Amino acid sequence: MKRVDYPNPFEWKNLIVRPAIDKASLDASIQNVLEQVRDNGDKALFEFTKAFDKVELETLQVSDLEIAKAKTLLDTELKDAIRLAADNIRKFHGAQISVEERIETTPGVICWRKDVAIDKVGLYIPGGSAPLFSTILMLGVPANIAGCSEIVLCTPPRKDGSIDPAILFTADLVGVKKIFKVGGAQAIAGMAYGTKTIPQVYKIFGPGNQYVTRAKEMVQQEGVAIDMPAGPSEVMVIADESCNPAFVAADVLSQAEHGADSQVILLCTDITTMERCMKQVELQLESLPRKDIAEKALQNSRAILFISMEDCIEFSNEYAPEHLIIASKKAESFASGITNAGSVFLGNYSCESAGDYASGTNHTLPTNGFARNYSGVSLDSFVKKITFQSLSAKGIQNIGPAIELMAEAEQLIAHKNAVTVRLKALSNE
Amino acid sequence: MKRVDYPNPFEWKNLIVRPAIDKASLDASIQNVLEQVRDNGDKALFEFTKAFDKVELETLQVSDLEIAKAKTLLDTELKDAIRLAADNIRKFHGAQISVEERIETTPGVICWRKDVAIDKVGLYIPGGSAPLFSTILMLGVPANIAGCSEIVLCTPPRKDGSIDPAILFTADLVGVKKIFKVGGAQAIAGMAYGTKTIPQVYKIFGPGNQYVTRAKEMVQQEGVAIDMPAGPSEVMVIADESCNPAFVAADVLSQAEHGADSQVILLCTDITTMERCMKQVELQLESLPRKDIAEKALQNSRAILFISMEDCIEFSNEYAPEHLIIASKKAESFASGITNAGSVFLGNYSCESAGDYASGTNHTLPTNGFARNYSGVSLDSFVKKITFQSLSAKGIQNIGPAIELMAEAEQLIAHKNAVTVRLKALSNE
Repeated sequence: MKRVDYPNPFEWKNLIVRPAIDKASLDASIQNVLEQVRDNGDKALFEFTKAFDKVELETLQVSDLEIAKAKTLLDTELKDAIRLAADNIRKFHGAQISVEERIETTPGVICWRKDVAIDKVGLYIPGGSAPLFSTILMLGVPANIAGCSEIVLCTPPRKDGSIDPAILFTADLVGVKKIFKVGGAQAIAGMAYGTKTIPQVYKIFGPGNQYVTRAKEMVQQEGVAIDMPAGPSEVMVIADESCNPAFVAADVLSQAEHGADSQVILLCTDITTMERCMKQVELQLESLPRKDIAEKALQNSRAILFISMEDCIEFSNEYAPEHLIIASKKAESFASGITNAGSVFLGNYSCESAGDYASGTNHTLPTNGFARNYSGVSLDSFVKKITFQSLSAKGIQNIGPAIELMAEAEQLIAHKNAVTVRLKALSNE
Repeated sequence: MKRVDYPNPFEWKNLIVRPAIDKASLDASIQNVLEQVRDNGDKALFEFTKAFDKVELETLQVSDLEIAKAKTLLDTELKDAIRLAADNIRKFHGAQISVEERIETTPGVICWRKDVAIDKVGLYIPGGSAPLFSTILMLGVPANIAGCSEIVLCTPPRKDGSIDPAILFTADLVGVKKIFKVGGAQAIAGMAYGTKTIPQVYKIFGPGNQYVTRAKEMVQQEGVAIDMPAGPSEVMVIADESCNPAFVAADVLSQAEHGADSQVILLCTDITTMERCMKQVELQLESLPRKDIAEKALQNSRAILFISMEDCIEFSNEYAPEHLIIASKKAESFASGITNAGSVFLGNYSCESAGDYASGTNHTLPTNGFARNYSGVSLDSFVKKITFQSLSAKGIQNIGPAIELMAEAEQLIAHKNAVTVRLKALSNE
């Protein structure tokens, strides 16, 4: 970790910069995948799966038998852990259901909003080195609560053409009925355009490598909604003298093991705390299976000293971290000052892992500074809010004259007429 | 209007298609504008304003004097109308403020969400033939309620370098402090990148011509959030025998006058009603100042007969209209079946103009079928929802073992360690 002591505000701008991502260089090859899948459907999916995943599949959809088998393959303990996490995620996201009251803005003018599920949604779950079944909980549970009628899941097959049983068990647990063995940009294309096998969806969720995230951005330009733009995962830890350095180091490393491009920023208000934390990082790093990855991530990472917690919070708001841990016994007292962050972990026992898996909050969060202008995934992500209005005769009489004046000033005379014909009809009654 | 009687479900697919929009042909010229403004700032803005708007400006920002003068230029009646509309919009959007309770998902694990304003937002208001000050209400009022600290407004200058007083009055009324005389793609670039004069913003709202909407999509790829993708405005009217054909026709025409590319779809359940409505359209069309535009729009438009109101609603859900008017005395009874629409107008006195101006609902809505996967603008559009969590020692003890199992199954051992170090420390206490 690169250490910076008491940077002056002019230096902040450089310290909040994320590593540049070269997206454009992938565009041509992703565009080809999108077009092939759009034009040739399932045939293209089989071909790309053979070319990229080195698997010759006979069918794309996971069978009921495979799902039933997965349930028997998984440890009971792990199944119980997944169920506990699902319960907490269900409680937190279920509390986000909102039924808004009808507002009478003017006598006779009643307006309201109603949440309606996005009918068809697609979830992308990466395969690769590890089966990220926790993301299925984070996307599948709110999709289910929202009432999405079609929930499609795509995930790349393993070398033997199978899917990790933890993925199948979790998908089944949260009510995902259609699981397809497709990964990469071709999976995004399959869900965006639909094929004979894969239903077309209106919104695509989920993390992925640079091909997947770029393919999502590209289909977004064609009208398919996506959860949010994505970048490498990141954590900011603000630690004061009341922190436990071993806990801080463990949190730093849990982010660093994600990938060589992960970013970790540690902010401290005193040198002793910072040195203790960094020493613990070195110590704990040694025994990690993913030490090589974590080491590389730490090279991009920074430990920065500030004079006060207030400065730390201000810098954090400028950085807009995906995850923000406040490792302090007084963490709650700083919460109100936080204006830009994806998810915030308050106090010494609130590790990022808790939110990653089982506390109930969502782990699909805005990275790369997007916490300035995007929210993480929540129940809201799976619904549209439709507005309704109902005007009585009295209602249009009350606001009609104002509408007539405004429409006329905007030179939209037919807009005015829509009111005038009604007011005239009422005055003739 | 093209009339279609009792289409069979195979024909629906063709009937819900919107006219294709060729976006790519503009990309090169818009890209040039974006790059020039990014690299040359205000200088480029002055040059593009001279080239595109034929105005040589001395300053980009509207002065306090200009705003003060605008207030004296506007009719008292119009000012009162705008104030009435602002009040209703404030009531409806103010009711969207949500304070969510803290959820204890497991004993000792407390999670909650907090709405925090997007710090800096930009509003684009088209100029052109008419001053669309009503859109300032629709964007400025919720931005203000949300508490956005910087609200920037860009609108193209008139030929004499001035801005319509209705725009300045309305902007001032809703608390917009910084107004700039810049239009087109260059305005979007100015707000996306920031210049010496125009503050950089994190999210850009507002309608515009094809250059503006495409520029918004392009800066979205660079991390600036936008309100939603856009297309030509549209209305669907479902009318049964209890409608008033003159009202229906006025609503049809108020959409048609928007632009030659506007779409109007009229659905009826009986031939007599449809013929009456279409006759009224012909009649009312004659006296419209924007007759030529409306006539062109009607050429793209359709009147479709269905057997039942249920079929009409089902077709409407497939079409996903921006505006949906249910011109029926029994309108409320059909509301629950609506799953895809931007804003719904129930009953014979609920004209689209009401929602366009003064009822309180927002008029910035998803067009082009985007009502399937996007909501209209609301208070939500101006905030991020940040999640927080606070675990006590008991909390991490309760969910820690589940996290350890799940992290291990995902092969993320540092994630597991972040829990393990805490559980160990607690068991040693």
